[in-house]
Amino acid sequence: MPTPTRTVQSATADSINDVRAVLAEHSAAHAARDVPRLLALYAPEATSFTLAPPLQQGPDTPYGTPQGVQRWFDTFDGPVEIVYLDPTVVMSGDVAFVHCLTQMTATPSGGEDSFSFWMRSTYGLRRIDGRWLIVHRHESVPFHMDGSFRAATELQP
Amino acid sequence: MPTPTRTVQSATADSINDVRAVLAEHSAAHAARDVPRLLALYAPEATSFTLAPPLQQGPDTPYGTPQGVQRWFDTFDGPVEIVYLDPTVVMSGDVAFVHCLTQMTATPSGGEDSFSFWMRSTYGLRRIDGRWLIVHRHESVPFHMDGSFRAATELQP
Repeated sequence: MPTPTRTVQSATADSINDVRAVLAEHSAAHAARDVPRLLALYAPEATSFTLAPPLQQGPDTPYGTPQGVQRWFDTFDGPVEIVYLDPTVVMSGDVAFVHCLTQMTATPSGGEDSFSFWMRSTYGLRRIDGRWLIVHRHESVPFHMDGSFRAATELQP
Repeated sequence: MPTPTRTVQSATADSINDVRAVLAEHSAAHAARDVPRLLALYAPEATSFTLAPPLQQGPDTPYGTPQGVQRWFDTFDGPVEIVYLDPTVVMSGDVAFVHCLTQMTATPSGGEDSFSFWMRSTYGLRRIDGRWLIVHRHESVPFHMDGSFRAATELQP
């Protein structure tokens, strides 16, 4: 993972590395399609704005439970590859946020060909009992304003 | 604006109110379609992930300049109404992030009818020389995973 490009003065190098480690582990848990490993990175009250509806994921939504995440992982064969491009980490005390463009590559279950696209990622983290946890996640692609309202999954950084 | 629902211990009530004031001013600048007033809330190096392409806005993109924002405002008649629903503010020291669902209502220029939709908003802020400024903004709607790839602009909180 590239070095974060911006920090605030009160952030220590160790803290920045701890947040970078959360991103690296987030990517590794996707590659392994390991639900407990993935969810261990999140605070229980975390809110997620995902690529798929609804507007916000929670205990009553498709991607808001371990079972839901498992079902999503099951739609792929092999690793779900997540690559963070040059994440910017902004941190002070026990709060940090990270933003970057992210490439996801995966092969649909039963399919032969992988697909790949770029999205935008923002993570909000808190240090709770000494551990950095994700309390907010926002992932998206923009959509075309040409009347088609089509998600712009073909864009490149 | 509703009271933020969560903070960290090191955040003071005054600081939380200062961040809430940034959101209120962001909304007011949209209502007034006032570009300088809007951009005064942003740090010069701010990055924005907007509803429209490209993936990230900057000095070379449609919404990355004062002229670009003005052109966007000019596509509407009357106020651009932005309502933040119960924003969550997470803060420590000189860094904060905010997330919420946001309703936008506006009338296209020359049109008779307004449109209204809900999106997801995440803002990252830094306190720079005593002033809270937006350094990162991420706005999106999800898209339908039914093969249509259509932006889900019809969702309700």
